Amino acid sequence: MNSGNTEHIKQIAILGSTGSIGTQALEVISEHPEEFQVYALTANNQVELLIKQAKKYQPEIVVIANTDYLPRLREALKDLPIKIYAGADAIEQVCESGPIDIVLTAMVGYSGLRPTLRAIKAGKSIALANKETMVVAGEIINELAHKHQVAILPVDSEHSAIFQCLEYANPLEKIILTASGGPFRKFSLEELRTVGREQALKHPNWAMGAKITIDSASMMNKGFEVIEAKWLFGLRPEQIEVVVHPQSIVHSMVQFRDGSIKAQLGLPDMKLPILYALTYPRRLETHYPRLDITQIASLEFEKPDLKKFRNLALAFTAMDEGGNMPCILNAANEVAVEAFLHDRIAFLQMSDLLEYTMDKAEFIKRPDYEAYTCSDQQARRIAQAYLDKLS
Amino acid sequence: MNSGNTEHIKQIAILGSTGSIGTQALEVISEHPEEFQVYALTANNQVELLIKQAKKYQPEIVVIANTDYLPRLREALKDLPIKIYAGADAIEQVCESGPIDIVLTAMVGYSGLRPTLRAIKAGKSIALANKETMVVAGEIINELAHKHQVAILPVDSEHSAIFQCLEYANPLEKIILTASGGPFRKFSLEELRTVGREQALKHPNWAMGAKITIDSASMMNKGFEVIEAKWLFGLRPEQIEVVVHPQSIVHSMVQFRDGSIKAQLGLPDMKLPILYALTYPRRLETHYPRLDITQIASLEFEKPDLKKFRNLALAFTAMDEGGNMPCILNAANEVAVEAFLHDRIAFLQMSDLLEYTMDKAEFIKRPDYEAYTCSDQQARRIAQAYLDKLS
Repeated sequence: MNSGNTEHIKQIAILGSTGSIGTQALEVISEHPEEFQVYALTANNQVELLIKQAKKYQPEIVVIANTDYLPRLREALKDLPIKIYAGADAIEQVCESGPIDIVLTAMVGYSGLRPTLRAIKAGKSIALANKETMVVAGEIINELAHKHQVAILPVDSEHSAIFQCLEYANPLEKIILTASGGPFRKFSLEELRTVGREQALKHPNWAMGAKITIDSASMMNKGFEVIEAKWLFGLRPEQIEVVVHPQSIVHSMVQFRDGSIKAQLGLPDMKLPILYALTYPRRLETHYPRLDITQIASLEFEKPDLKKFRNLALAFTAMDEGGNMPCILNAANEVAVEAFLHDRIAFLQMSDLLEYTMDKAEFIKRPDYEAYTCSDQQARRIAQAYLDKLS
Repeated sequence: MNSGNTEHIKQIAILGSTGSIGTQALEVISEHPEEFQVYALTANNQVELLIKQAKKYQPEIVVIANTDYLPRLREALKDLPIKIYAGADAIEQVCESGPIDIVLTAMVGYSGLRPTLRAIKAGKSIALANKETMVVAGEIINELAHKHQVAILPVDSEHSAIFQCLEYANPLEKIILTASGGPFRKFSLEELRTVGREQALKHPNWAMGAKITIDSASMMNKGFEVIEAKWLFGLRPEQIEVVVHPQSIVHSMVQFRDGSIKAQLGLPDMKLPILYALTYPRRLETHYPRLDITQIASLEFEKPDLKKFRNLALAFTAMDEGGNMPCILNAANEVAVEAFLHDRIAFLQMSDLLEYTMDKAEFIKRPDYEAYTCSDQQARRIAQAYLDKLS
């Protein structure tokens, strides 16, 4: 690692380069050619976009997870000096490549865990945009990062905000994670019963992928962020508060033991936290639009309604219980969101499915990596069986 | 100095101990006997309160500026092992006392300058609550502090907020000083013409001395804070923005060159910035009431109206012109506030008086200490002559 040397051009691997964070990360990187080079790009299924990106950013390596697309990828890039691989194993191996300085983990869901573990073991800094990794296995990640002296740099705007407000000399009393409240903040419980996929996919402040947009609408995403924050910042559950802030201008806050609160603010723009994760502790000059706070009519803050947004309450429960419970919650939620997106269950039934799965799955107090894998699979089976009974 | 040694008990001198900041500083100090001891207390005229404080906090030295009160002070404290002095010279000399670690400058107005200079020359850290010092002679203070390797630690809640948000590695793009807007924020220019002393003395959010409360009502105080910030944080005038924020929850903000904004928030309570100035970079645990952001209906921000609050515009003018102009502005304002408090001029006439004095007083581009003293006196004479013509 050469993170302290400004003359060294950092080599970046982006896992999930065709997603929302991945594409924005590529823009950020291309704005600072004196700082960064794209070393590797990986994608799941979006082979055509991956081809475009490979042609534009000329990485050393591209990997497509779905091996069906390997011939197409090879054909399209045959005139370029780019190494081409396919499959989940290849993604993991690429993370270990010698020249890589930072691995940006921007893939969706549980699939981010294995490559992240491999990257940490290879001594790569992690720019963490795959929150499920920390939700599922934060304890293992932390231990491994500590052992290999690797920095975990948050990319989520909320965790970046907290990270930006930390002080070396002073412990945190608590953090205040802000939540937009999503499109259903003002809906009654009755109205929530009948909301459909199209409504849930319209987020008021952020444009993101389908999974995370549904998770935002259900506040599951905020619940995952709570668990992520616990591991990233070494907090006890009672040190984490969620506050609904519909304007998404205050990206989160920290409170020190003297009572002083610090907040990070800005327009909703993921490029800034991506850039900060890649350059920390330095800040580069940008020409991103600046916030004019006088143009915001007012900033509002309210307590979240845990009766309406049960997924958030379930995340606090899972965090309190610890062990493999967040892993179970995450697996059940991946099944639930998929089912909701295919109109198999209603919006509020997602919480029923999570609760059912958390109740039925085997609880393990101190899981190791294999236990997480088994828990993840068991939880998916239980959730699937619940769904099958419904139809 | 032993500021890095946590076992050393810091010896504090409070200049202006009977004022609002002084009395709160004594509370802060008495809450942390393991950290601080009161070494010296000084006051202007409030001898009875000074006696009470001396009995309670048992300093080594007390000084009363007004020599008329020396006999009373001596009589009241004759049974205690406290050294007693009187007069402005004594205050300056006390600042140099060997054991003092930090001098808290909490006196009112221009009178703070000389003792502050003496304390810096003697190598004492300055907890700066006397903003006029920086307004009048920021350049000299900075040079001297640099030469003697002395820290200037801001106590004003706005400057403390900025100080708390600074990052070692990253320069500021700009700062956003928040202003409550005072009691007359919603008044029309017509209504402002007839506001009286009693109205101006009622500040919506902060309980302070008379001078600073009037300065807050006229936004002169915010103007001085602008100039103070320029010197404290090494800013160009165009890097300083004032935003009216009626709730006084966000105490100020900074913007870095990547566009990220950081803010410090809290309930309006001067004890926290006082404590931080005395313990920086550490934060001590406190039991001060915590802000519950969900209890604040909303946070609002608007541009200040410089037509209504001309004093703020005059401060920007004085800062832009530089040299002795802020000194002239400060001197004229001390005369103006005194005249307003004695019903000699109307609220808006204070701005006329300032403008007149800034126009008539001799401009000096590069004043030294003596030049400041002469400018201060000349500006007071000009302002007084203007007042005399009115009556």
